Formats: sequence, structure tokens, C-alpha cells
Amino acid sequence: MNIKKVVVAGAGVLGSQIAFQSAYKGFDVIVWARSEGSVERARPKFERLLDIYETTLEAMKTNPAAYCRGLAESPQVSEEKIDSLKDAAKKAFESLKFTTSYEEAANDADLVIEAIAEDPEQKIAFYTELAHYLPEKTILATNSSTMLPSTFAEATGRPEKYLALHFANEIWRNNTAEIMGHAGTAQQPYEEVVKFADAIGMIPLCLKKEQPGYILNSLLVPFLKSAQALYATGVADPETIDKTWMLATGAPLGPFRILDIVGLTTTYNIAIMDPLAADPETVQGKVAAMLKERIGAGKTGVNAGEGFYRYEK
Amino acid sequence: MNIKKVVVAGAGVLGSQIAFQSAYKGFDVIVWARSEGSVERARPKFERLLDIYETTLEAMKTNPAAYCRGLAESPQVSEEKIDSLKDAAKKAFESLKFTTSYEEAANDADLVIEAIAEDPEQKIAFYTELAHYLPEKTILATNSSTMLPSTFAEATGRPEKYLALHFANEIWRNNTAEIMGHAGTAQQPYEEVVKFADAIGMIPLCLKKEQPGYILNSLLVPFLKSAQALYATGVADPETIDKTWMLATGAPLGPFRILDIVGLTTTYNIAIMDPLAADPETVQGKVAAMLKERIGAGKTGVNAGEGFYRYEK
Repeated sequence: MNIKKVVVAGAGVLGSQIAFQSAYKGFDVIVWARSEGSVERARPKFERLLDIYETTLEAMKTNPAAYCRGLAESPQVSEEKIDSLKDAAKKAFESLKFTTSYEEAANDADLVIEAIAEDPEQKIAFYTELAHYLPEKTILATNSSTMLPSTFAEATGRPEKYLALHFANEIWRNNTAEIMGHAGTAQQPYEEVVKFADAIGMIPLCLKKEQPGYILNSLLVPFLKSAQALYATGVADPETIDKTWMLATGAPLGPFRILDIVGLTTTYNIAIMDPLAADPETVQGKVAAMLKERIGAGKTGVNAGEGFYRYEK
Repeated sequence: MNIKKVVVAGAGVLGSQIAFQSAYKGFDVIVWARSEGSVERARPKFERLLDIYETTLEAMKTNPAAYCRGLAESPQVSEEKIDSLKDAAKKAFESLKFTTSYEEAANDADLVIEAIAEDPEQKIAFYTELAHYLPEKTILATNSSTMLPSTFAEATGRPEKYLALHFANEIWRNNTAEIMGHAGTAQQPYEEVVKFADAIGMIPLCLKKEQPGYILNSLLVPFLKSAQALYATGVADPETIDKTWMLATGAPLGPFRILDIVGLTTTYNIAIMDPLAADPETVQGKVAAMLKERIGAGKTGVNAGEGFYRYEK
């Protein structure tokens, strides 16, 4: 793998995690943000990440359940090794560079990971401007959850070196990295990105062609929709539905626990994409109404302390 | 609960398991079968079940992973207790009665569980004939996976005491019991059946209204369909899809492992219910073709030693 210098564009929830994890694993990382204001708002996120990494590593000394694969390659790790990993987290934090300059970000970049807002216009503006400064060698990846690389391939000016590299929230713990090209992505940059994902402690999951929702959401969305339909039409309550799934498949979480983690607002926004959701007589309309009522009552999921279930704050 | 005498009609895979488990938990069980030939074909099934119960109980003495909740209430069970449970299995086997007579089966029955073929005509003929002999008190339950109780409520002559009680294969290990009435089922018999399911070591899962596929298949079928679509359209291979699901949700099995357990023939029969499966250009058509090819090669799932994965025989 030839990737050394990594640029993460956007310092939101995922952008900051990708940048921190890459630095933790020894890459030379620069964070690009749109404005000085964005850079300032990003700093506390990195302080929090350093705290999470240090606390989790310390916990791993005594509690096997604290183990996160993104932080250490094996659960069997000595106290000395953990202390050196805590040093690595501290060094990662100190090594992070920030810029608002396209030129500075682009300079000698091996990989740019775009994690800016899910707004096609902003993405096109970013890609177009960046293209003026990017060296020929640079691979460009998007972390977009909802948009396809083919949409932006032309705007990047380097379609053959452009693809999607999609992370899950809390990447130190949730190590999926879905890698998906568009029809014009070349094999070599694709393979470089697979190696990079592995090198930062992720588990590369390779898609052979473009798929809206990648693999995970292609499975999760219809699964969660059918669970919501059972509840919204009065067939069974969330506890019974979750229990059925867990008992029958051995899964640790049922669909409503997963929905609480995803968050009901996101779930509602997905639900109303279906035109049938506008009709209260349809199953889709009943699902939307059920979600809207809960959201209206502030029950938006785990982060709010209550969704379909209640959580200790 | 007033249920003491239980009739299980049909001694197929599930019928024999329901009868044996009910007898094991102390109920007075009579197995009704259509003909003396059916009774003869059923006997080896019960011998095999006795062997499974005895072997599993013996294994539980030394191997915690052998524990089956249907066999013992707690994994912490003494050797003496296990020996008494093995006696109970033996006594269950010896206590089972068989008949081909509607009259003998119906006599003083508290609960009849219908587990005959998934053929509406056979079910109607069975219910109609049985109705001549059944005492007023008897509750009648169907184990049908694919048909709704409302379809047969009239034919039973006792719609208010008729409902579905749906088991999973290997009920001593897989303890789900989905309980589903039709609109005319009365509350009291519904609750009796909930108590009965609990009494034979199942976990009652209560549906509040009729739902084709109950809870489990309403979740499982769309989930498995989306996984098959990802593979059949060339997005990713079964191993990657399974890995994604397991990593992201913590589930012990991905969709293709589940499909191998369900069996590809059953999966194919579900797939071709969709008229779009007849068109090879549709996703549904591609899924059907993918399944057909594997079935043609004898790769029908775990029982065949190979499906999407290979299994040690």
C-alpha cells in the first residue's frame, strides 16, 4: 500500500472519527474544514475521542468486555502494550493537522476521504474545487451513506480513482468499512482502499457494484420496515417482536432496539421517502404516524433516553 | 389452566415433536393419524425423539452448550435431576397413545393441536369430521405456517375456541410458540393456550391479530429476500453479506447461513410465489434462477451437506 498522507474533509461525527482512527493507526492525517469556525467546532470532538480511546484502553486492562477491535488487534493484550496504545492515542491527537485551504490539504495527498454534508451541491462544489490542486496519484473516497459514487464521478475529475468508503458510527468499536466503486472505478485504487481500511483496523466489506444503501442498509431497511409495519398495524408490540427475532435467530438485539440506536428521526425521514406514507390508510402511513407521535413526545431513541424502550441516562 | 388431555393430529415432523414435548412435560397425549399406515410411519419418529432427548440430557451433565430450555428449566441442573428428566422422557415415550378414530381422539379432549398437511381441503375435511365428536370444552389450535385461522374458523364449528399455535422445528431447542387468533377467537381460550405453551416449555409470543407469516416470517422473509437480491444481482457474495450483517448487528448467523438452515427448496417455493420471478430480467427472476441452479446441483442446504456453504456430513 502506498497510502501515507490522508486528508479527511469534514469534521462532523464520522469525519472526526475517521481522522482520529487513521492517525491512531499511524497515518499522517490532515483535517480539512470549510471555515475556521468549523475547525474550532471540531476541536472538542477530537478531545472527546482521545478521552474515549484512553478510557476504553484503560478499561481493557481489567474488563474483557471493554475490548474494541479498532483499538487493539487482539483481546489478549498486556498492560504494557495498552499503555503504549494510550501513548499512540495521545500522539494521534497531537499529530492532527487542520486546514481550510484546498491547496494545503491536497498537497502530496495519497487519499482524500470526503465526509462533508449529505448535500449534492456541496459535494460537487468541494470536488470541483479540490480537483484544481490534487496530485494525479490521489485516491478520492466518499463516506456518503445515501449517495452513489457515479453521481459525482465526473465532478471529481478522476473517476477511475474515485469510490465510496463507508464507515459505521463509533468506528473504533464498529469496524465495518463498506467499499464500493462505480462502473468506472479502476481496480488498483479500489484495492489500495481495501488495504487502507484494513490498516486502520476496519474489516473491509467489498461490494462488486454500486448499490444504494450498500450491503448493510439494503438488509436493514426492509427488515426494520417489516418490524415497524407489524407494530403500526397492531399485530404485536415491540417487546414481543424483538423477543421473537432474538429467540428465533439468536441475535442480541431485536429490530426495535436497533431502531432506538438508529434514532426515530432518521427512521421517520426514511419512512416518508415512500409516497404511500402520505396516506394514513396505508401501512406506510400508519408507520409514519406511529413514528411521528413518538418523535413528538421526544422519544427519539437511545440518545434521548427513550424511544421504543426507556434507557438510563 | 384446565388443559390435561391433549390431542395432536398429524404425526409429521412438527406433529411428532409437539406430541412428544407435551408428553415430556406431563400432559396426557394422544396422537391422531389418518391411517394405520401413518401410525406405523410415526413410531420411528418418536423413537428418534426419545433418543435425542436422552442424549441431549446426558450431554447437559458435562457440556453447558448442550442445554436446551425445552428440556430443563435452568442450565444449572444436577446430575440427579437430569436422570429424573431422562426417566420423564422414557415415560413420555411409553405414555403416548395412538388412534385413527376421530371419536377416540375427541373423547374428553381439552386441547386439539392440528398439525396435518398444509392442504386446505384436508384441513377442512379434518375439522368438519372432528366437529361431530368434540366436546364443547375443547380448544382447537392449528400449527399451520402458511394459512390463517380465519380461513377455517367456520369449518371447525367452534370459531371462538379456534386459533393458531405455531411452533418452530426442533421445539425442545427452539422454543418459540406464536399464538394468533382470528377476529372471532375469544379471550379465554386464547389465554389457556398461552398458559399451555408456557407449561410445555415454550416461550409464548402473542399476536393481537391475524398476520400471514406470524411475526417471525414477516420479519425473516423480506430480510432473506433482500440478501438474495444483493447476491443474485452481483453486488456481493454470500460470505461478505453474512459478514456485514454479523459485524453490524452482532448476530451469530448471517442471512445465507439462515437460508441454508431453512433450505433452498423452501426458499425457492417462496420466491416463485412472486409473479415477477417468471421474468429473468427482474431481480426476482435473477433470485429464482440463482436458487434453481443451486438446487439443480443438489446444494439444497445444511441437510444436503451444501447450500451457500459446505457442511461436514
